[in-house]
Amino acid sequence: MNTTFSEFQQKLVDIAQLKSAMAALNWDKDVFMPPKGSGPRAAMLSYLAGELHEKVVSREFLDLLRESKAAADSGALSEGESAIVREVWRDVSREEKLPVEFVKELAQVTSEAYLVWVDARQKKEFTLFAPYLKKIVALKRREADLVGFKQSPYDALIDTFEPYATTEEIAAVLGDLRNFLTPFLAKIRNSKANVRREAIAGDFDVEKQKVFCALVAKKIGYDFDAGRLDVSAHPFSTSFHPQDSRITTRYNPKEIIESISGVVHETGHALYEQGLPAKQFGTPLAEAVSHGIHESQSRLWENLVGRSSAFWTYFYPLLRNEFPAAFGNVSLETFYRAINAVEPSFIRVEADEVTYNLHVILRFEIERAMIEGDIAVDELPRIWNSKMKEFLMLDVPDDSLGVLQDVHWSFGGIGYFPTYSLGNLYSAQFFATARRAIPALDEEMARGEFGSLLKWLRENIHVHGKFYSAQDLAKRATGEKLNSKYFSEYITRKYSEIYEL
Amino acid sequence: MNTTFSEFQQKLVDIAQLKSAMAALNWDKDVFMPPKGSGPRAAMLSYLAGELHEKVVSREFLDLLRESKAAADSGALSEGESAIVREVWRDVSREEKLPVEFVKELAQVTSEAYLVWVDARQKKEFTLFAPYLKKIVALKRREADLVGFKQSPYDALIDTFEPYATTEEIAAVLGDLRNFLTPFLAKIRNSKANVRREAIAGDFDVEKQKVFCALVAKKIGYDFDAGRLDVSAHPFSTSFHPQDSRITTRYNPKEIIESISGVVHETGHALYEQGLPAKQFGTPLAEAVSHGIHESQSRLWENLVGRSSAFWTYFYPLLRNEFPAAFGNVSLETFYRAINAVEPSFIRVEADEVTYNLHVILRFEIERAMIEGDIAVDELPRIWNSKMKEFLMLDVPDDSLGVLQDVHWSFGGIGYFPTYSLGNLYSAQFFATARRAIPALDEEMARGEFGSLLKWLRENIHVHGKFYSAQDLAKRATGEKLNSKYFSEYITRKYSEIYEL
Repeated sequence: MNTTFSEFQQKLVDIAQLKSAMAALNWDKDVFMPPKGSGPRAAMLSYLAGELHEKVVSREFLDLLRESKAAADSGALSEGESAIVREVWRDVSREEKLPVEFVKELAQVTSEAYLVWVDARQKKEFTLFAPYLKKIVALKRREADLVGFKQSPYDALIDTFEPYATTEEIAAVLGDLRNFLTPFLAKIRNSKANVRREAIAGDFDVEKQKVFCALVAKKIGYDFDAGRLDVSAHPFSTSFHPQDSRITTRYNPKEIIESISGVVHETGHALYEQGLPAKQFGTPLAEAVSHGIHESQSRLWENLVGRSSAFWTYFYPLLRNEFPAAFGNVSLETFYRAINAVEPSFIRVEADEVTYNLHVILRFEIERAMIEGDIAVDELPRIWNSKMKEFLMLDVPDDSLGVLQDVHWSFGGIGYFPTYSLGNLYSAQFFATARRAIPALDEEMARGEFGSLLKWLRENIHVHGKFYSAQDLAKRATGEKLNSKYFSEYITRKYSEIYEL
Repeated sequence: MNTTFSEFQQKLVDIAQLKSAMAALNWDKDVFMPPKGSGPRAAMLSYLAGELHEKVVSREFLDLLRESKAAADSGALSEGESAIVREVWRDVSREEKLPVEFVKELAQVTSEAYLVWVDARQKKEFTLFAPYLKKIVALKRREADLVGFKQSPYDALIDTFEPYATTEEIAAVLGDLRNFLTPFLAKIRNSKANVRREAIAGDFDVEKQKVFCALVAKKIGYDFDAGRLDVSAHPFSTSFHPQDSRITTRYNPKEIIESISGVVHETGHALYEQGLPAKQFGTPLAEAVSHGIHESQSRLWENLVGRSSAFWTYFYPLLRNEFPAAFGNVSLETFYRAINAVEPSFIRVEADEVTYNLHVILRFEIERAMIEGDIAVDELPRIWNSKMKEFLMLDVPDDSLGVLQDVHWSFGGIGYFPTYSLGNLYSAQFFATARRAIPALDEEMARGEFGSLLKWLRENIHVHGKFYSAQDLAKRATGEKLNSKYFSEYITRKYSEIYEL
């Protein structure tokens, strides 16, 4: 092995140790830390962030990176080593284009903006948040200029969430998706089919919910010897290493599908993390490809699997057995329809499979136009509300149920939203391919067997880390580039049956 | 404020952030980490330990220390600042006397020795461990030579656990203690009083034990907003900051006193940590004085308070109410006697208040003699067993119940044992003084009020951090230097009544 590269790789592992330590300390902060620990913990994490930054910008590290890049360019490294260098080079090159003052200003503005956003949302007043959003948009446009882009400044922003993706490509697939969803949703609205979400209301003991959710996670393949399931205010998954990838959820004593879906979603993320190659820890070969691909794993398990008829053929008798008061008189068919009820609503994170992507497309269209300078921040509530009317036929009553609902813009996460829909599209495309590869998939799932599916995902997605770009990975796994066809077909088939279209 | 000192203090805080992060990651390791996380976590902690070491030996830090020392010596610093410099200087001076090769060798030998000790104890064969203990003793004697000492090489080893203490002083107080305990234990052995530990056997639901233990911890003053109580294989307390000081215990479904005592013990440690001045975080002024003083806080709450008649006057009715099957027919008097039963046994950590110190004195005498070259490692089992016979009239059946029972020597912790007994002596001396200052202490405790006692400990012990040495702190708090009189008086009074002597 090339000596320089080997030293470089060691530095990557060192950096990863610090990142993992911070992830573990953040996990503790969100899951178990006592309240008075928050000030000291913030100081601890801020100190470690400073240490991490120093390592990444150190001359020693950058020299090793440059020498490794030269080695890769001259053909002295293996394919895997070259992929490592390529990805680190990509990240560092971007970082190097941002002056320290710019980074500090963005950190300062977003840190203030977050608190203002919390307040504005509570008061339902977009005008409170608008001045900060203006600053953030200006800074993000400057970031795009500093980083550089080919066609749209929005390209430069997508890039941190979905490397190698472009505005044009995303606009094309989301445009197709929108063109499918809007008329399809209209058909559902006109359906007379008996689909009632209320059919599954009830009282659900939280301790019993915990046991059931853990059973589901275990059954679909989550390795509890390499992870944990805990409670936190907001569900999340985090990973310190493929051998220690943890998930959280929250429980509502009046609702159980929320926590099961949440756990299956986070388990999907964690299965990806547990499936990354441990031997490559610290390098991009043990990192997820992109936000979109990560989300494809969570959504595949949450929706394609976890809201399927086959899945519940196995789990519903168990669920009913645990909660006879709620489900004793509810048939599998009624239950299956209830958990797949389509109901346009104001809040993205509560949306069903069909309307969810319309929430995302709305945000994508708005933030792209903001960054490309086509709409002004002050116009946002009007535009938001008019799109909600157009897409979902809803009249937004106030900004907390509208333009102020998401945290993303307050932390500068412009370019993040589309990855949610990319995840949905990738998930359907992957699942369709897996289904062809595993002809008895539905029968297996109906028997509570998910091993073949997980194996397919492991071999085709997880094990590669960042060796391929998202686009290449999809092409390699499914034989074609990302498109919305598989998702549209999946939705059409499933919901035509449920809504008797 | 002196600029150099202020920079020096900032470095101390940085170092403390790293130490606290490691403590939190160790806590997670022992409490919640999934099993497959252990390899990655060891690598993470080892990396952080290396980072920590680099900071402590960095020229930048050492220069700031030297300049601060000069400022302190010239009278340019405040008393508190000077105390900070004094304690850091003390630690660093010791470290600087140990060559890197020596430190590495000791780390290597003890890391191997630990595994060998685990195996030897399991196989009950001291001869397996003996070669490693010989190496450790030789290394520790060399450490004493490198560090330097006045009278005994053992002085140099005590020093890391009990700063400023000497072998001579410790031998004197422990000698007095032994002279009191041996005849007193003989009297107890001859007593015909009805004291039966079996009186409190029963079945104790673990979830109910948890609730009860948390209640006790809260009642005696543990701030759950600045800490947590969890389960671990071995009970411990750890602190990342005075606002985040956590404890653990374990539960035995056949025994409840073990877990209550364990929790009260760890709470005692945590009350000290929570009482250290948060503003001084990172400096010795927010650190415990010594192992002995730390142990005095745990033992004061565990024994002087937690095994007292006043304490149980309040808690026993509550306990009985929670566990009526076990305690319905057991009077407070019978219960009180049972939890204070004196029964010579082989294992130190299971020993009662009276015999415990004899276990410690035995170890102190043996390890001191080993380090001073008066006995050879091969003789240890024979000497151990003969002292067990002499002190406790017990015939040790095998080495796992004898010389192999403690982990300390395997990690090189020679000089640690006596601090357990110093803790017991300090606890009795502090408690006697607190009692004089709070005339109604027993009545308060019998009403479940522990605030006055905690306030006394906060003001006289906790708040000072390492400003005073243990000796000076004790003198300041109690008016006299450490002696065994208060402990002997306490034991005599309490056990004369229980055993009707």
